[in-house]
Amino acid sequence: MIPPVQPIELSDIEAARRNVAGTVLRTPLVRLDLGLGGPDIRLKLENLQPTNAYKIRGAANAVAKLSDEDKAKGVWTISAGNAGQGVAYAARAAGIPCSVVAIETAPQTKLDRMRALGATIVPVSYAEAWKAAEAHAFPGLDGTFIHPFDNQDFIAGHGTMGLEIVEDAPDVRTVIAAIGGGGLITGVGSAVKALRPDVRVLGAEPETAAPYAYSLREGVPSKFPDWQASFVDGAGGQSVTERMWQRMQAVVDGSIIVTLDQTRDAMRLIAEKSRAVSEGAGALSLAAALTGKAGEGPIVCIVSGGNIDLAKFAELVT
Amino acid sequence: MIPPVQPIELSDIEAARRNVAGTVLRTPLVRLDLGLGGPDIRLKLENLQPTNAYKIRGAANAVAKLSDEDKAKGVWTISAGNAGQGVAYAARAAGIPCSVVAIETAPQTKLDRMRALGATIVPVSYAEAWKAAEAHAFPGLDGTFIHPFDNQDFIAGHGTMGLEIVEDAPDVRTVIAAIGGGGLITGVGSAVKALRPDVRVLGAEPETAAPYAYSLREGVPSKFPDWQASFVDGAGGQSVTERMWQRMQAVVDGSIIVTLDQTRDAMRLIAEKSRAVSEGAGALSLAAALTGKAGEGPIVCIVSGGNIDLAKFAELVT
Repeated sequence: MIPPVQPIELSDIEAARRNVAGTVLRTPLVRLDLGLGGPDIRLKLENLQPTNAYKIRGAANAVAKLSDEDKAKGVWTISAGNAGQGVAYAARAAGIPCSVVAIETAPQTKLDRMRALGATIVPVSYAEAWKAAEAHAFPGLDGTFIHPFDNQDFIAGHGTMGLEIVEDAPDVRTVIAAIGGGGLITGVGSAVKALRPDVRVLGAEPETAAPYAYSLREGVPSKFPDWQASFVDGAGGQSVTERMWQRMQAVVDGSIIVTLDQTRDAMRLIAEKSRAVSEGAGALSLAAALTGKAGEGPIVCIVSGGNIDLAKFAELVT
Repeated sequence: MIPPVQPIELSDIEAARRNVAGTVLRTPLVRLDLGLGGPDIRLKLENLQPTNAYKIRGAANAVAKLSDEDKAKGVWTISAGNAGQGVAYAARAAGIPCSVVAIETAPQTKLDRMRALGATIVPVSYAEAWKAAEAHAFPGLDGTFIHPFDNQDFIAGHGTMGLEIVEDAPDVRTVIAAIGGGGLITGVGSAVKALRPDVRVLGAEPETAAPYAYSLREGVPSKFPDWQASFVDGAGGQSVTERMWQRMQAVVDGSIIVTLDQTRDAMRLIAEKSRAVSEGAGALSLAAALTGKAGEGPIVCIVSGGNIDLAKFAELVT
């Protein structure tokens, strides 16, 4: 029932761009001024999207591609927060119903926002959510399932970010994106590699949850040993699925592991220099760039989201 | 010695746009999602500029227009913080020296940043700074004076924001900008009124420092009685000068006074909804829009800057 993995074609990403134009913000690429002699780093501020995370790109594309008949039945997704908000926002914009199978440990901010966007929340454990994500099904829900990372249209929507990056930074040498399920980096990598095969595409994962870096070392998609929950709740899965492994292998050049302290420092730097609020996952890419392991710039770091309780944010950065 | 006040022509603003293109960010206009039935408000995020405030627009234009001979002599300005950073940044980009006559009560963040950009700081009292701003001179400084608000090229640079607003929000009905010296609203108003005379241009001032609203009531440029310092340190002057009165009268339709509490609430809303850090002055426009006195939307609120100590920001919004 699940279609085989296929490459995300440039033409699909270009079509997605037209599909999402009315819903998605063309986010700015801002220079991070680290003073004379500092690395050339630019931030792609996806935290400025209407739902404060990049997932709205994929969601808007997936909803736009539904037939009228499928629209009438509505959509559902599985989410720790950002995908659910993205799909709920796109569904509301299209006037169709939406349910979210939500991991019950998701931050309250994210759950509240999904509800405010009109979504029906079905709270489940992490294990149940992961099982549904692997099975592409959940008992009792019908309508079209929009998988939060393993979905062709969803990933093509994220790819629109890659088109913007290449346009706004024609001199880019490296693009870094956080890896959670792997949809973001697959989408961006597919666009960037199609347009500019010489540009490196690197993942960023926290030390507490780095299954892609671990899988690369093992040579097979693996479960990360000693996975731990942290404030980086929007990235860092427990495993890489076989399907996402295939997708990422095609367009990703490696993954940099960063510590939680480095991630917090990057959050602070983004706030100080660019006056933007990022969540932990959103700052992983900058933390990775600042390790020096990503090579010389220009490096584009995708700040994937900013959904964090403000009090928690203040506690982390001040 | 001081040239008479002249209108800021659209052609000057269009030329400024070419002059600043390499230095200034074309900032995004983001929708503030207030739910169904809420007003249509969009934020122009000037806090994302390299110096985290709009002043870099005017500074980049004024520096670009210097002759090679004048460049060699350098530039100076007077500032409570944001203008100084803007001029220092533009001077550094052009490789020319810069001095800033800085009001000694300016936030440490702002003074540190001017120094980090290579500017020489000359600390003075508010009264001395204001006297120098009125005289367009300060003893002991030569080079070209770039007035922080009453300067044709500086204002034309700010006008570039107005061009972007009309392009990105062709349906705009009202534009709101904070009033400090009056340069921001004069620049934006000049561009907006030239392109779209039907669009209303409104100022926003804090209750503790609202000399333009007071002057409008009096019918003459006036000193604001009972001026008080507050966390809104980037706007809210003590007086309106005769020259800025002439400039503003030509392109501004009124000024809305907001309380400090309303300003803090607007800062919090910008952080919650758009994940952006604004300073007090930067949130005045949204606070004004939310009073309901600005009429129906679409309303564009200029978030003029985000230069505030993060600890102070956290204290105000959490």
